[in-house]
Amino acid sequence: MTDKRQLVPMERDDAIRLLGSVSLGRIVFTSQALPAIRPVNHLVDDGDVIIRTHIGAAITSVVAPTTPGVVVAYEADQIDPESHIGWSVVITGVATPITDAGDIARYERQLEPWISQPMDQVVRIVPDLVTGYRLTDGLARDIH
Amino acid sequence: MTDKRQLVPMERDDAIRLLGSVSLGRIVFTSQALPAIRPVNHLVDDGDVIIRTHIGAAITSVVAPTTPGVVVAYEADQIDPESHIGWSVVITGVATPITDAGDIARYERQLEPWISQPMDQVVRIVPDLVTGYRLTDGLARDIH
Repeated sequence: MTDKRQLVPMERDDAIRLLGSVSLGRIVFTSQALPAIRPVNHLVDDGDVIIRTHIGAAITSVVAPTTPGVVVAYEADQIDPESHIGWSVVITGVATPITDAGDIARYERQLEPWISQPMDQVVRIVPDLVTGYRLTDGLARDIH
Repeated sequence: MTDKRQLVPMERDDAIRLLGSVSLGRIVFTSQALPAIRPVNHLVDDGDVIIRTHIGAAITSVVAPTTPGVVVAYEADQIDPESHIGWSVVITGVATPITDAGDIARYERQLEPWISQPMDQVVRIVPDLVTGYRLTDGLARDIH
């Protein structure tokens, strides 16, 4: 008898759906050859992850309109700090700035920035690798 | 009048203390030239971040006893999903496997793994860069 959690992999569609069910995640990228991470808010639109970045955010310097997209990871999780039951989803894919003015306006309306700083870029991450797992208590219960 | 959050940088000591006040974080590293991230639990001991990894975890392949340490980032946050008030801390530093049997035994007792898989490595991350900020509502209130 153990109370240890089980790691249960999930299907890609379930992972994307769970990612879209929360608004906070973390973008992971390389900045000056070092691993870097920033919490941001996001939405999922037609399977893509859309984020906004503010001026001065490190991601802006690597995802610039003048460069092709860069590969980033994006992570979200909901893990209970006491029971450790929950889920985690990580996608990896190319991040590119959105340049269409209509798309920018639409996403800006949907993605309310947290911070009272000028927001200057809307970025789309197209998931390539998608991994997700649930942390369950080993019973049949499924935690959403 | 705005209800937007303010980003308030914090001192290094405050950031390390907040990191030690929670047990869940995310290790960020490079795996096969791609940015990678895994949620893990941690403790802070004398300013260092200590984590355990299980066999098969991607970090194990990059933090091996036969290699010198690798640079990783480690992030933890507590951000209210509704109000967006909270904090985020990111450290960057060299991760090395702990080899002293006494240290391993002590940390293994303190760091209860979540998952019922064999745990094979205890890793120390010595913070080099430490950045932390609070997301406040712009009022004098301070959220811990």
